[in-house]
This record gives sequence, structure tokens and C-alpha cells, in this order.
Amino acid sequence: MTIPFFDRRNMNFVLNELLDVEQLTRYNYYQEHSQETFDAIIEVAEQIAREYFYPHNAESDKNEPVIVDGRVKIIPEVKEAIQVFAEAGFFAGHHSEELGGIQLPWVVNQACLSIFQAANIATSGYPFLTIAAANLIEAFGSEELKSRYLPPMLDGRCFGTMALTEPQAGSSLSDITTTAESTPEGHYLLRGNKMFISGGEHELSENIVHLVLARIKGAPAGVKGISLFLVPRYHVNPDGSLGEHNDVALSGLLHKMGYRGTTSTALNFGENGRCVSYLIGEPHKGLAYMFQMMNEARIGVGMGAAMLGYAGYLYSLDYARTRPQGRLPGNKDPQSKQVMLVDHADVRRMLLQQKAYVEGAYALGLYAAWLVDQQKISPDEQVRRDCGLLLDILTPIVKAWPSKYCLKANYQAIQILGGYGYTREYPVEQYYRDNRLNPIHEGTNGIQAIDLLGRKVSLFNAAAFKLLIREIAETVKQGSEEASLKDWSRELHQALQVVEETTEELLEVQEQVGMEAYLANASLYLEILGHLVMAWMWLRQAVVASRQIESASASNRSFYMGKLQACGYFFRWELPKIQYQSRILRDMDRTCLDMKDEWF
Amino acid sequence: MTIPFFDRRNMNFVLNELLDVEQLTRYNYYQEHSQETFDAIIEVAEQIAREYFYPHNAESDKNEPVIVDGRVKIIPEVKEAIQVFAEAGFFAGHHSEELGGIQLPWVVNQACLSIFQAANIATSGYPFLTIAAANLIEAFGSEELKSRYLPPMLDGRCFGTMALTEPQAGSSLSDITTTAESTPEGHYLLRGNKMFISGGEHELSENIVHLVLARIKGAPAGVKGISLFLVPRYHVNPDGSLGEHNDVALSGLLHKMGYRGTTSTALNFGENGRCVSYLIGEPHKGLAYMFQMMNEARIGVGMGAAMLGYAGYLYSLDYARTRPQGRLPGNKDPQSKQVMLVDHADVRRMLLQQKAYVEGAYALGLYAAWLVDQQKISPDEQVRRDCGLLLDILTPIVKAWPSKYCLKANYQAIQILGGYGYTREYPVEQYYRDNRLNPIHEGTNGIQAIDLLGRKVSLFNAAAFKLLIREIAETVKQGSEEASLKDWSRELHQALQVVEETTEELLEVQEQVGMEAYLANASLYLEILGHLVMAWMWLRQAVVASRQIESASASNRSFYMGKLQACGYFFRWELPKIQYQSRILRDMDRTCLDMKDEWF
Repeated sequence: MTIPFFDRRNMNFVLNELLDVEQLTRYNYYQEHSQETFDAIIEVAEQIAREYFYPHNAESDKNEPVIVDGRVKIIPEVKEAIQVFAEAGFFAGHHSEELGGIQLPWVVNQACLSIFQAANIATSGYPFLTIAAANLIEAFGSEELKSRYLPPMLDGRCFGTMALTEPQAGSSLSDITTTAESTPEGHYLLRGNKMFISGGEHELSENIVHLVLARIKGAPAGVKGISLFLVPRYHVNPDGSLGEHNDVALSGLLHKMGYRGTTSTALNFGENGRCVSYLIGEPHKGLAYMFQMMNEARIGVGMGAAMLGYAGYLYSLDYARTRPQGRLPGNKDPQSKQVMLVDHADVRRMLLQQKAYVEGAYALGLYAAWLVDQQKISPDEQVRRDCGLLLDILTPIVKAWPSKYCLKANYQAIQILGGYGYTREYPVEQYYRDNRLNPIHEGTNGIQAIDLLGRKVSLFNAAAFKLLIREIAETVKQGSEEASLKDWSRELHQALQVVEETTEELLEVQEQVGMEAYLANASLYLEILGHLVMAWMWLRQAVVASRQIESASASNRSFYMGKLQACGYFFRWELPKIQYQSRILRDMDRTCLDMKDEWF
Repeated sequence: MTIPFFDRRNMNFVLNELLDVEQLTRYNYYQEHSQETFDAIIEVAEQIAREYFYPHNAESDKNEPVIVDGRVKIIPEVKEAIQVFAEAGFFAGHHSEELGGIQLPWVVNQACLSIFQAANIATSGYPFLTIAAANLIEAFGSEELKSRYLPPMLDGRCFGTMALTEPQAGSSLSDITTTAESTPEGHYLLRGNKMFISGGEHELSENIVHLVLARIKGAPAGVKGISLFLVPRYHVNPDGSLGEHNDVALSGLLHKMGYRGTTSTALNFGENGRCVSYLIGEPHKGLAYMFQMMNEARIGVGMGAAMLGYAGYLYSLDYARTRPQGRLPGNKDPQSKQVMLVDHADVRRMLLQQKAYVEGAYALGLYAAWLVDQQKISPDEQVRRDCGLLLDILTPIVKAWPSKYCLKANYQAIQILGGYGYTREYPVEQYYRDNRLNPIHEGTNGIQAIDLLGRKVSLFNAAAFKLLIREIAETVKQGSEEASLKDWSRELHQALQVVEETTEELLEVQEQVGMEAYLANASLYLEILGHLVMAWMWLRQAVVASRQIESASASNRSFYMGKLQACGYFFRWELPKIQYQSRILRDMDRTCLDMKDEWF
């Protein structure tokens, strides 16, 4: 039996029918590509994911990394899988040909990566961080750093990490205390402790490059005094060969409830005063550089959350279709044949909810990746600027919404399996544990909410917000032209107005009430804008389905009917809640703000 | 440092100020008791829970039961804790003096048990099942069965289980196939396989009594042919000494994501045709008897869910009060002192949400236990009848609501701890895993929803529902007499009307649309009635707080302010959602019903 964890039909729908990614090949940079090359690459990704990533997913959860003789020991299947991944060129795929890449559009790359995430979120963590770290070095590193460190990263011989968090400073990066001292040789000596560093130590690759936030001695306090450093685990000689071990020491492993195969480490930099590190870009601008990697990682987290939700959905769907249980209400004959779980309306509710969450999140994630391409490649400056703005405002949603709602999807997958669902003999409980990390790492969802309402919404005179509203209004227009979508289009229009008015009112009173009160209910704002965006994604999908369904084959017709029904579910069962949530926001509700510590 | 897992102040509030349990001592059966005896017993429970149950909670999660040489091996702390529990008399506390009990009101007993659940849900599982099994035997067993099996169970020397589920029949008890054949000696021979049997095999007690559902050969099909049997692990001689091993064999252990310390077993009955079992009550009436135990277990599951949520809430509150992190929005000075997590409005939101869920669920659970006492002891027949009706309709809510919402509370506890929250070095991730079982075992929440809308609401011409409405209306009246509660009282009144109208409309169309359509959205109905009941619990608590606050000491004033603020949170942030949910119900929405298998 092939265990389902990934749905190619829906990926094709999003890439080809919703986003029309083939259009990207009109741009010079992507001109060597075609629908056929995209399909062939995706095919390879799926095959590797199925053969090398999926099979050890449960195994690496059961046997998490341990320290043996001072080294991190990881089950061998992980290394093997990543080697195959590297040999297929997925570390470098989206890079330029000069760098050894094949100039694959980021959206196609993201689609490929999503298959690995669905197959094995923990193993895919290593190459993902490496890809993001390489992107950062490429963007901001000096030519020397690039020539020395990029090639092995793009080959998959050297992995990357991001080292931000310190034991005392999680969300508050302003308070990191790792220091860097310049030396006459031009490099810096780092000293400090970092923790929650994914992939911080292992023997999967010949080297590791840590991208570390630290303060140069004498730097201004706060985030304006943070610089970014490249710290290799092993020194790299000018000829590329490896030198001595740098002064970076593993001080411990964290034991997580999920993502167990991705080793999470506490690292000591410069215990012996010899941690050689290299400044990336200019001093004190490290946080801005790091945000490129963080934004990429945030989209990656959202996609990962979507894929974990997706894998659970497909598994529980398969289970519901093949497990007989009980009879339909009203049938009092105990000798009649049992029906399948999927025949119960309440089970279909749990499946529809999952479908609405995971396919919505999936569409949003790939749309964001498509925006990355447009922002980078479009010859039209206005398009580049607009796509950048949309990415700005959508990133917190792409990260937070799937990590909250696709975890809810995993909850329902367990529920459908009943008692079996909570046993470790079935994969859905692992998905649920894995996914529980996503609302936290790469910036908690509370931080995303503050980023959204505190920064992104008002940025450039609310330019990104207004642009998003216009984009959604365009979909409303398209939807209202489809006879079957008139009602939902009207509802999306109304929801749009509610969110717009709520936002305007909030922005108006911001100065008057002060930042603390303005941001007090930011998480609720993230909820309403998130649901609006997700309803938009669903109406966009419904428009495509509605246009295609008349002339579709029987199997495609079923697929499109599923899209329409899931869209209906989202509009009827989910979207209405923004009404009461926006009322709380517009009332500037002070329930949480006014709560006193001593009253708890 | 004392790690907080239980809040005595709030227990006293619910028992004494909300339910006024001392009033129960007016009844003859409880007349030996007083506020002082209650307090002393609770004190003992808390001490044992703190010293013997809490310390091995993480340990028994990490070292779950394993089979060694054919026997289930469990860490020794579990047996020790339960022995202390037994010696203190908690197995028999609520039973009559003739049976060796002290005639403790069930509500006080439940309050004591809740402390053990908060301290260690897995270890408390063994005595809990035993207590429920003993209650069932006492209610329906023959004198001979009672005299032979009850004494060791009330001493804690013999444990009990409930054995309903079979590999092919989870929610659908109608389809169980375990058979029972009568013998000339008067007992039966059982044959069949059961699974998910908590406490089904271990060496914690000298014997185990399984309460097993099976079909007597020739019985009618379906639930009307199910009988209940007592099946001892070891035979018991007339003098109480243990005889040979009965024909019950362990076929495997289930490995769960939570409740790991409560061993969950697959058992084979009668592999060798010698499984001696004893009929309880009359043939074919087993399910009705078992429902007594199931209802008790369901209330126990709800309480357990509440306590897991509670323990997480208290832990995250403690953490939030002592962990410095960042500065308040608007403070741009990175050199100013950091504030504590609890000073951030968004963290207070996550704490208030937990408080609203867990204290609401706790009040509901103890209220249900108080109803059990009234139903059993009140000299007034009408009171007994009414309390029975209220229990009927509330049981699915007591089980399902906390198991859903207090799991959400655990989600927030993890979120507050950030990265630490998802590591196994902190207890909150275990609470989250433990609590994930509660929406499933003892009847999935979907089954509770069908029980509620399909049976309890319409039972006896909707007598239970109407009574519940009257009870809530009485609280509305009381609330409207408090100046500070007028708004919330009006809102509860409106919510009451919405739920009442929705229910009436559903009942009206039931016949016309058929059972399948009537029950299609039953889970949503459970949501709205559940939230209504929880808002009721909160207004009841607010009424007490409002009456006391003026004359209260400073610390009590803070406590009551907390109650009022949490009530406000529930009314503003939670209750409004029943508006759109009831609209879906009143529209007889067919989204889930109409979804076709092939569209997924």
C-alpha cells in the first residue's frame, strides 16, 4: 500500500491553474524552462521524497539525535536522504547558472521542497536552513566569503544554521549579549551562548556555517547594535580544504516534542577566546540582513505547517474511506452492513475542515513564493515593488495562519482515527507533535501579530495593506462574474469592508491610545486579516474551478466540486467569525490590557 | 521551589462559595460531616498528590509500561503512590459505612480526585477506573459478586477496568462480537478480543476485575443483545483468597502519545475456552448498566481534561511572572529594564483564555458531581428527578467541552513558554500530549454531540433541556440584580434565547428532514450549548464574586477581580461566536452532509 502524504493533483492545480507558473518562463532569467522541465523536476522531488525521506520519518522521531563521545549521532537514513537530495541538485536549483544552479523559479522550488516537508519535516530541516543561509550569504556576503563558503553549501557538503536566540533572549533580540571583538587580521572573535540552534552540530555534512547575531564591542544598545557574523565549524583554507575546528562547542541538545529528527542545540561560541568569525555586510546592520533569512524561514515554517496538516489530512481521508464503522443515523437495523467512516456527516465535517485549512494554506504559501519570483525577476519596477509590499504584509500571515490552523487540521486527523489516532503506531500523532513547534519557532505567532499590526499594516502609509485590499477586491470582481460564486463574492466583499474599516479605525486611534493599547489585541487582528486572506485564496481557487468545471472530465469534475465545497465550508463555517472578532478590535477592548498580574 | 499544579483557593471558592457543599451535611447520609472534615480530607489528598503523585509524573511518561517476561512492568513509584492513596481510604471514601467508606459526598470526593488528576493523570487512572467499576458492581451486581469482589476493590487490592472496545468496533458498540456461553455451573465462558483497555494488565494490584461487554449466544443483534460480565484476572475463592489465573491473556500494549503511564492493553478473553465470567444483572441489559460507569468515566474525563489544563495554566502563569522578556510596545529604550512576560497584553490574553477555560470547566465538573449527590440523597423526589435530568443533558458537555477547550489551554501554556514550552524539560508539553486523548476516549466528542442532540435534548419531551434553560434563566435573574453584571446578564439572556430558538427549530424539523440531516451538524450544536453552559458557569461565579467583593480582604478582592475579569473575557471573546454558529444550525446547513467522498 502506498501511504498518501502528498497530493500531486492539487499541486498541479495551484501551480498551473491558479498561479500559471509557466508564464514565468517568458522572463529571460527563466527562459530555459518550460512546463515540461517543471514537471520533470517535481517528479524527481516526489520520487526522492517518497523513497528516501518518508520511510524514516517515524524512525527518526523515535530515535532522536543523541550525543555519543561528544558527537551528535543521527540515524544514517538522514544523511543518505540528504545526499540524494544534494545529488539531484536541490540545494542549488534556484541559483544562477554561474553558481551551479538551474535558475528554477522559486515557486517551483518551493513546491518541490514542500514535498520533502510533507514526507519528513525533520530531515528536510537541514537542507532548508542551508538553502536559506546560502541565500543570505549570496545577498550580503563579501566576494571572498561567497567564494569560500557558497560552493560547498550549494553542493550540500556544508550546512547552514541561523543562530539568534540566547537563553535569556528569545523573542527579545534587543537583549542578546553575544559579543564580537575585531582583530588586526580583519576577522572578529565571538563570545556568547546561543540556544535552539537547529542543525547546530552533527556529522551529516563536512562543515557547518553558523550565521550568528552578535554585538561588536562598543555597539549601540538594542537592535541597532546587532551585527551578523559567519562562523564556520571548521576553518576553511583558501583552497577550500578544511582546517582546524573553530572555537564553537556543543553544550547540549534540546529534547523536543516534535521535529525530533532536526537536532536542536545549545552552542558556546568562544569558550577559549578563539572563535574566529567574519562580519557579513556592515556593522550594526545584522538584523536587517538576518530578516531576509528569517522571512524566508517564516514562509518555510508556514509551508511546513501546511504540509504536516496536509499529510495528516490525506492519511485520515484514506483511513476514513477504508474503515467500516457503525451505521447512518436513523438506521436502526444492527444487522445491516456497516458504512465507512467517511459516510458519516461529522467525519466529512472533520475532513472538509482539514481540506479547507491545508489546501488554503498551501495555495497561500505557493502564492507567496510566486511573489518572491515576481519581486526578483519582473522587468516592471512597479510590479517588483508591489510584490515586495504584498510579501511584506503577507509574511506574518503565511507563517502564523498555517501554523495555527494546520495544527487544528492535525487535531482532526487524530480525531478521525479515534483511539488509533493517539497511538504511536499511526503517523497522525507525530504530525500533531511536529506541527506544535510551528506556532513558536521563527518568531512566535504573537510576535507575528505585533509585526503585522505594529509595522506591516502602517508601513509606507499603509501602502501594502491598500494593495492587498485591491488585490482581494479584484478577486471579488472575478467571482461575482461567476453565477455560482455570487454569494461568496458578496460575502468576501463584506468581509473586506469589515477588515478595512477595522484597520482604519485602529490606525486612527493609534496615536491617541498609545502603542500598548493599539497592539493589545494584535493577535485578534492577525486572526481577522488571516481569515480574510484565506477566504480570498479560496475564492480564487473557486473561480478557477467554476470556470473549468463545465468542460472537465469526470475525475476533474470531482476535483473541482471538492474545491467548491471546501470553499463553501470556509465561507459558511469559518469566515463569519471575523464579524465578532472585528467588533472586539473596534471597541478597543481592554479586557486583556486591564488584567492585573495579581488578579490571576 | 514548589511547582504549582493545583489552586486550593479556587477549589474552596467552587466548593464553598459557589456550591455551598456544607449544606449537604443537613442530609442524614452526610450528617457526620462538616466543613472541617471536608477540609481535612482535601488537605490529605493534596499532600499525597504533592508527595506521591506529582514527583513521578514526568518519569512515568518517559518510562511507559513495557512487557518483560510476559508481565507488564511499571515504574515502582506508581504502585507506591496508589498504596498511599489506598491507605488514606480514597478508594472507598464515598461509600457507605457498611462497606467501609466514610460517606463522603461525591462532590468532595471528586474535588479530592481532581487534585490527583492534576498531579498525575496517568497514575490516577488506575484508582479512578477501579472506583467507577466498584460503583457499577455495587449498583448492579448480585450479593454474591458484591461480597466477593467489592471488599478488595474498596481496599485498593483489586483494580477494575472497563472492556468495551474491540479492534473492529470503537464507537459502534452495536458491532462487538465477544461472545458468552452459559455453563451448567451458572457462570459463562467468554471468548473475544478487546483493546484500548486501560489498566488491563499490570502487577500493581493482586487482582484485576474486568467489566466486559459481550453477547450471550443467541442474543438479539445490536445493542439490545449486549450483556455485562465480571471477569476476574485471578479466580477468587469463597474465602477471598486468590485462585488460578483466569483465561485472560495480554496480547499487546498500545503506545500512546499521552497518558503513557496508564497502560493501555489489548486482551484476549478465552483463547483456551476457559474464560470464566459472571453475568451482572439481567441478560441483554449490559449497555444500560455500563452507561452508569461510562457516565461516571465521562465526567472523570472532563475533570481530568480540566485539571491538565489547570496544571498547564498555573505553570505558565508562574513562568510568565518570573521570566523577563522585552519591553512594552512604545518603549524604544533598549537599556531600560526588561518587563516580565506577564506584563505583555498578549501574554495576559493567553493566560486569561486559559483561566476562563480551566476555571469554567472546573466549576462545571464539580457542579456535575454536586448533582450526583443531590440525585442520590435529596429527600425531595422532584429534586432527585431534576438533578438526574440535568446530569443527563450535561454529561456530554462535561466530557467534551473541557477535553476540547482545556487542550486549547494547554496549547497556550506551551505558547507562553516559547521554545522552552515544546521541550520535554518543561511539563507543559506533556500536559498537551496527555490532554489530546481526552476528546477521544470514553466516547469521542463526535459521539457526545450525537448523544446530546440525538438523545438528551429531546428526551422526555425535552424535559432536561427545558430544565437547564430555567436554571440558566435563574442565574440571569440573579446577575441582573448586580449593578456590575447587568450587561453580561443581558448577554447571557440573549444567548439563552438564541440557543432555545435554535433547539426548537431543530426539533421541529427533525421528522421532516430525517435523522441524518438533523444530526449532520450535531458537533456545532454541542459547541453552542457548551458555550452557553460555560457562560452560565461564569456568570454564576461572577455573581458570587460581585456579592463578596465589597467586603473582601485585599487578597480576596484580587481573587474576585480575577473572576470578574475572566468572566468578562468569556463574555466578550468567546460567547459571541454562538451567534454565527447557531445561524449555521438554523439554516440546516448541508455543506458537510452534501460533501461526496469522491470530491475529497
